[in-house]
Amino acid sequence: MDLLSIDSLTDEQIDGLLETADLFTRRGGGSTRYAGRIVFNLFYENSTRTLMSFAAAAARLGAVPLTLPVEQSSIKKGETLADTARTLNAMGPDALVMRHGEDGSVAEVAQLMDCPVLNAGDGTNEHPTQALLDALTLRQHFGRIEGLTVAICGDIRHSRVARSNRKLLERLGATVRLAGPPPLLPDDLPGGGAIDEAVRGADAVMMLRIQRERLAEELGDSPGEYLASYGLTVERLAQAAPHAVVLHPGPMNRGVEIADEIADHPRSLILRQVANGVAMRMAVLDLLLSA
Amino acid sequence: MDLLSIDSLTDEQIDGLLETADLFTRRGGGSTRYAGRIVFNLFYENSTRTLMSFAAAAARLGAVPLTLPVEQSSIKKGETLADTARTLNAMGPDALVMRHGEDGSVAEVAQLMDCPVLNAGDGTNEHPTQALLDALTLRQHFGRIEGLTVAICGDIRHSRVARSNRKLLERLGATVRLAGPPPLLPDDLPGGGAIDEAVRGADAVMMLRIQRERLAEELGDSPGEYLASYGLTVERLAQAAPHAVVLHPGPMNRGVEIADEIADHPRSLILRQVANGVAMRMAVLDLLLSA
Amino acid sequence: MDLLSIDSLTDEQIDGLLETADLFTRRGGGSTRYAGRIVFNLFYENSTRTLMSFAAAAARLGAVPLTLPVEQSSIKKGETLADTARTLNAMGPDALVMRHGEDGSVAEVAQLMDCPVLNAGDGTNEHPTQALLDALTLRQHFGRIEGLTVAICGDIRHSRVARSNRKLLERLGATVRLAGPPPLLPDDLPGGGAIDEAVRGADAVMMLRIQRERLAEELGDSPGEYLASYGLTVERLAQAAPHAVVLHPGPMNRGVEIADEIADHPRSLILRQVANGVAMRMAVLDLLLSA
Repeated sequence: MDLLSIDSLTDEQIDGLLETADLFTRRGGGSTRYAGRIVFNLFYENSTRTLMSFAAAAARLGAVPLTLPVEQSSIKKGETLADTARTLNAMGPDALVMRHGEDGSVAEVAQLMDCPVLNAGDGTNEHPTQALLDALTLRQHFGRIEGLTVAICGDIRHSRVARSNRKLLERLGATVRLAGPPPLLPDDLPGGGAIDEAVRGADAVMMLRIQRERLAEELGDSPGEYLASYGLTVERLAQAAPHAVVLHPGPMNRGVEIADEIADHPRSLILRQVANGVAMRMAVLDLLLSA
Repeated sequence: MDLLSIDSLTDEQIDGLLETADLFTRRGGGSTRYAGRIVFNLFYENSTRTLMSFAAAAARLGAVPLTLPVEQSSIKKGETLADTARTLNAMGPDALVMRHGEDGSVAEVAQLMDCPVLNAGDGTNEHPTQALLDALTLRQHFGRIEGLTVAICGDIRHSRVARSNRKLLERLGATVRLAGPPPLLPDDLPGGGAIDEAVRGADAVMMLRIQRERLAEELGDSPGEYLASYGLTVERLAQAAPHAVVLHPGPMNRGVEIADEIADHPRSLILRQVANGVAMRMAVLDLLLSA
Repeated sequence: MDLLSIDSLTDEQIDGLLETADLFTRRGGGSTRYAGRIVFNLFYENSTRTLMSFAAAAARLGAVPLTLPVEQSSIKKGETLADTARTLNAMGPDALVMRHGEDGSVAEVAQLMDCPVLNAGDGTNEHPTQALLDALTLRQHFGRIEGLTVAICGDIRHSRVARSNRKLLERLGATVRLAGPPPLLPDDLPGGGAIDEAVRGADAVMMLRIQRERLAEELGDSPGEYLASYGLTVERLAQAAPHAVVLHPGPMNRGVEIADEIADHPRSLILRQVANGVAMRMAVLDLLLSA
């Protein structure tokens, strides 16, 4: 079994992951349950935070995380992705965690692997563990997800975080509102969205990281203007429900998509998301390794 | 005891390694036999595949593989190789796996280390674990090595793979034929070798990776011409024995030294070689760590 | 509890660390005492030797060392140090080992972490594990530290090694003499110091690494002249006590701050320092993880 997309999971599996990860957040310490098992981390895009989160999750379960030095190696150019996949598969890892810049690349690799494959982000397509950890964070805070209104704001067009979250949160009964700068909205966004409308009355506001390159290219590189027009300011957050919480997948551009005060706001769940990231990845690895 | 060269091993040790590695390929799962033992990986040349193979082998035995960040560190220029060796030795690793661009450098380091040293490739000299895994692959397929005819084709002059394989396969009773482009043959090659003659009737054809830099320098950078003149095409493979198998140490240059169809041919044992690589490195580590 | 400075430790803790580390140097093999525990290594300055020493120490205790790829990641520029610290803390490591170019940065991070933090060098401020391993080395050799005279020579102004050693050795009852080229002495150095005077009659001479950039900038890049004027030559060592020993934190610039013959001299304890480094870091990790 692979975790390529939110669609890879049944409703029971989603419930199980939320339960298991929740338990992991309450228990400290490590386990040696998967001692001698090997998890390969194959990251074609650098992401210290996601890589460390997966590595910590594997280590907490007793497994050995082995990270491929993609940047320094020839595998980025010297070999087809299929040859790399077949080679890694032949080495017999117990699981493969993969991030890649192209949509569908992780699924393509998964077809060639005999072990479970976890999508840690493929292009603008999906980032399922991020959505699962976000759902866990909301569920821990509100006690439920059904009935919540969640505004996801920013570069929706290119965001795998938005895509996976929308799928998962809607399946769990939330209402998802997407909003962002017009050039960064998908063509087919139904009723998409001014940020002020999206935030109004929302139970949770999830801000997305804006890539500085994209900001420069599409909007003129003006962080302050971006914040005023599309970012989460104190004034804008005041339009959300009085109990509204703030999420961000990190790393944050303070003063760009999120105001400094909000990042450190008591209603910010951003660090809770990071903690839940390790727990959820433990739960996912446990599900896949025990399958 | 070190594994610096095929000559480091007695006949009994070679037999033992082939037996043990064969067993490892049939059993899955991990062991904690060498828990708390440390294997340093010191790779002066990048090689994701060999590095991961050794790291996976160490981890499968319960040992901790620790890879030195040679590229980012000052050890590549700031310190003599002897000082680096003495320093690493003082840290007390249980084994050192080393790859380096200069012939004899691994043996030089081994003289300064109190722990076993494994040569993972030194210049154009030797790559003994590659030869051992190739022998395992042939023995698994044919049930024996004695009496086989093996053609090794490509840049023989600079190939540590060819050098180690020739030594090992001849010791095990095979006939080895070497062939390649004239500028890439060693000066002393006895009767060396047009590729068509080498392949004719052979039981196994082992193609070597051609470095693109060397191709450009020595032969004019024309991959298609190289394939036609010196690579393994379907037509050329048809001249081998009807049951002939194909090996390649990887990573392959498809369409240069090996035709696409051959790489994925049912008689290609290339992925079997990768799988056997982990098993053979486990067997070697086990031999050296238990000595 | 953190180890940020020599001042972080009580006298009893220092004694305990010296005892425990001494025991570790006499016992081989590994332990699984801290299996499943995670130690993050966050090195903003490259240092293969210190990084490997800490990683080996963690592994010897059964813990999993996870090294953040600082160089390749965006954390070096993309995020404030505080955000990086809060994020890593949320991942729940059992300890954090950190090196950074700015004085006080490790203490700043430690305030944001719930787990113990070990200073592996912060700017020109402190490098406490180096001082501890040096003290262990002297104590093993002389049976005591009280009453010894130790000359520390080189770039005192910028040396965290000198700073931590002076604090620790003076606390343990040694007399410390500091000496170096005038531009590389601190402004407030009381009676500081021509190297010949410092070395005369000393029981131990600790040479510091001179940064080549600094040598060029402050003194004109002339390694031979540096050695003659400020380095440890055979003639200079002859002025020390007849039983005097030599230390160096490494990596050495042979022929610059230390003559070739001295580096390999029978009275050089330089490799003993490296071995003691792993043992002392095991002792420190053990102290902090068990607290």
